Amino acid sequence: MKTILTYGTFDLLHVGHLNMLERLKSMGDKLIVGVSTDEFNQQKGKQSIFSFDERARIINALSCVDEVIPEKNWQQKPEDIHKYNVDIFGIGDDWQGKFDSLNEFCEVHYLSRTKDISSTSLKQALSNIDKEFIRQIKDNLDHMFTIVKAME
Amino acid sequence: MKTILTYGTFDLLHVGHLNMLERLKSMGDKLIVGVSTDEFNQQKGKQSIFSFDERARIINALSCVDEVIPEKNWQQKPEDIHKYNVDIFGIGDDWQGKFDSLNEFCEVHYLSRTKDISSTSLKQALSNIDKEFIRQIKDNLDHMFTIVKAME
Repeated sequence: MKTILTYGTFDLLHVGHLNMLERLKSMGDKLIVGVSTDEFNQQKGKQSIFSFDERARIINALSCVDEVIPEKNWQQKPEDIHKYNVDIFGIGDDWQGKFDSLNEFCEVHYLSRTKDISSTSLKQALSNIDKEFIRQIKDNLDHMFTIVKAME
Repeated sequence: MKTILTYGTFDLLHVGHLNMLERLKSMGDKLIVGVSTDEFNQQKGKQSIFSFDERARIINALSCVDEVIPEKNWQQKPEDIHKYNVDIFGIGDDWQGKFDSLNEFCEVHYLSRTKDISSTSLKQALSNIDKEFIRQIKDNLDHMFTIVKAME
């Protein structure tokens, strides 16, 4: 039996996450996902919309995921690989080369990410309507400043 | 074998969706989910962040969901109930009483929704920072208008 391990925050689940998790699962038999805790994200300066409990529950509800474990720090990976008899460690290629040191414990794979999809771009898309509104207000404000200056 | 049917847009999957789907699945053996198409949402004046294909894929990736079908209009429910031999039609109690007419074809259940979680409130939370920023700019603008008017 081949066991695969990956880590991530997985806030606002999208098809990019799903592509990655399903590809990882297809590389073996058992997929374990380390979901970053809220405390660990805080250390990284990251703030998720959903709490750890919510994110872990959603990831655990996917049929391609066999087990969810908490990711609490940067150092736990070798320990997890040993504890869960992991054969393959896989992660997005935005981390290319960063986890080569794990090669002494298991295979390390960097997977290409789905283009144009990420939680960050998703959050940006969500606030775009507001941004357009801000731009209009700013234009009006600039126009008023010109009038005020001309009145001086 | 008991078959359950539900419908929804399921944009930005959250634990409220999951609670509902897992409860529905626990009522029988097979859960079929009708995911609203983008065209049907347009008719309803709804705009989702994720496309139909993305939403359908994510719902289909949940282990509690057995089949996803497209929801194209308001009228298809009796036909779907017949076609898929549905025993139970279930939906959130924000629709209480609205689908009682389906009682002649199968059981109808209205399920209580998870408090404080909905896609709508989620989107609001996401854009709250921008909204606060807009409010401050607007207040300043209003104040400046008063000054400019007094100078005329």
